Amino acid sequence: MVKVAIQGIAGSFHDIAAQCYFGKENIELVPCTTFKDLFACLTENASMVGIVAIENTIAGSLLPNYNLLRESRLTIIGEHKLRIRHNLVAMPGQTIDDIKEVHSHYMALLQCEEFLAAHPHIKHVEAEDTAAEGLRISEEKAMGQAAICSKYAAELFGLEILAKGIETNKHNFTRFLIIGNEIMRDKLAGDREKNKASLVFSLPHEEGSLSKILTILSFYNINLTKIQSLPVVGHEWEYLFYIDVKFNDFVRYRQSLDAIIPLTKKLRILGEYAEGEQTI
Amino acid sequence: MVKVAIQGIAGSFHDIAAQCYFGKENIELVPCTTFKDLFACLTENASMVGIVAIENTIAGSLLPNYNLLRESRLTIIGEHKLRIRHNLVAMPGQTIDDIKEVHSHYMALLQCEEFLAAHPHIKHVEAEDTAAEGLRISEEKAMGQAAICSKYAAELFGLEILAKGIETNKHNFTRFLIIGNEIMRDKLAGDREKNKASLVFSLPHEEGSLSKILTILSFYNINLTKIQSLPVVGHEWEYLFYIDVKFNDFVRYRQSLDAIIPLTKKLRILGEYAEGEQTI
Repeated sequence: MVKVAIQGIAGSFHDIAAQCYFGKENIELVPCTTFKDLFACLTENASMVGIVAIENTIAGSLLPNYNLLRESRLTIIGEHKLRIRHNLVAMPGQTIDDIKEVHSHYMALLQCEEFLAAHPHIKHVEAEDTAAEGLRISEEKAMGQAAICSKYAAELFGLEILAKGIETNKHNFTRFLIIGNEIMRDKLAGDREKNKASLVFSLPHEEGSLSKILTILSFYNINLTKIQSLPVVGHEWEYLFYIDVKFNDFVRYRQSLDAIIPLTKKLRILGEYAEGEQTI
Repeated sequence: MVKVAIQGIAGSFHDIAAQCYFGKENIELVPCTTFKDLFACLTENASMVGIVAIENTIAGSLLPNYNLLRESRLTIIGEHKLRIRHNLVAMPGQTIDDIKEVHSHYMALLQCEEFLAAHPHIKHVEAEDTAAEGLRISEEKAMGQAAICSKYAAELFGLEILAKGIETNKHNFTRFLIIGNEIMRDKLAGDREKNKASLVFSLPHEEGSLSKILTILSFYNINLTKIQSLPVVGHEWEYLFYIDVKFNDFVRYRQSLDAIIPLTKKLRILGEYAEGEQTI
């Protein structure tokens, strides 16, 4: 049994990602209100791991989570990519015409824009969480209200799906990172072969400084799967780069790091792990 | 007088960014509910320009706006970087202790997390817009309610600032793009010297494909100021790159494009413009 801290409650997408990575029967969920709480919780509990959303194909990177990870002493244990399917759910026995209000998170409402535009009689109410609104509707037996939830959350809360797959863009994937300390990494992912790494480093704002790093990585047959620059605010001429790399040969990968370290500043390995599966 | 479409209402940060770029007396605001509406509005009105937030130092890139821009026939006319200062505002004559609820956008509430945590008696209510909640409070003369607004919005709506600069991270900047068609670009920014460009292209997922592009750009003395990769969903082995570059010599910059085009796929110039000012 692994204690897994998630942002949100049982039935949330973080819960589903945890089940996909560890297997449903192997986890004990520890719900946290915010990502900040989650990192604080993991820092205090050495035998716990956590799951955090890090990027979404529609909304982009969750930069605040990158920051929390960089500032923590935690490492990435693994990853999972989950297809996000939204459903309109409500108390059983109702039709869409009975629904007066949909309560959900800002981002979920935005991702279901087209469906909601086609049902203008439903008022949008922004809420702090997607699954929590499903739970509330179930507990209050609130008729005339709908939430936007996963199929799993609908089952969990005894709600009926009035419309399924209502997300506008079907290429809606969220990538989740499994994080924890190094002891938990070795315990939980020690036997998975590491073929991916997430790195962060800064570079001076000079012509070609990034191209040198990437050229060296390519000489070592390291494949770049993500790159994102961020200005270091307060240091006008410095940039922070988050990169994900894939490799077949771990030794070669570590040699490539030795080769780029003298050209970078403050390089940190956020994690070395096995590339995650994608749940469609 | 320029017609400037903004997302949101008068008093919003988009309005302030428009005033900073064009001068307050030179603009006629056209408020739009969503960014999608804004792009539709610009496509129909050839003599209108628009302002859209494209990235924030805390929250990251607004990928949906990058998508809307890429899919439109519009171009970037210019940019402006605005320091985002949040204030707690309410009907005059109240103290913080009188405030029971704060109504604001999800992102504004998040950015003022620490201030709100220090005032746990105030309930958070998520709303669709920041400035619009200030206007509503003013119109309804709603006592006991606060909004999170700019100083300018507080003045505009006759509200009092109960706490100023309540954003947790003071390095909170949003970069706005001024967009329009090419005729408007020449009319409004024709005399500003172009020293920056935003490009988007795709590359095959091959070792070193990006490093080649960046190496060529550095040979031409082109400086990279932003890079962001995005997987092209549905095309597992293809990546989309958004880059911003700066240069001193426009001819050299155009030559560098000629040099990289054969190595890229679907390169599109999103705009060539003068680097924007930063309002502190």
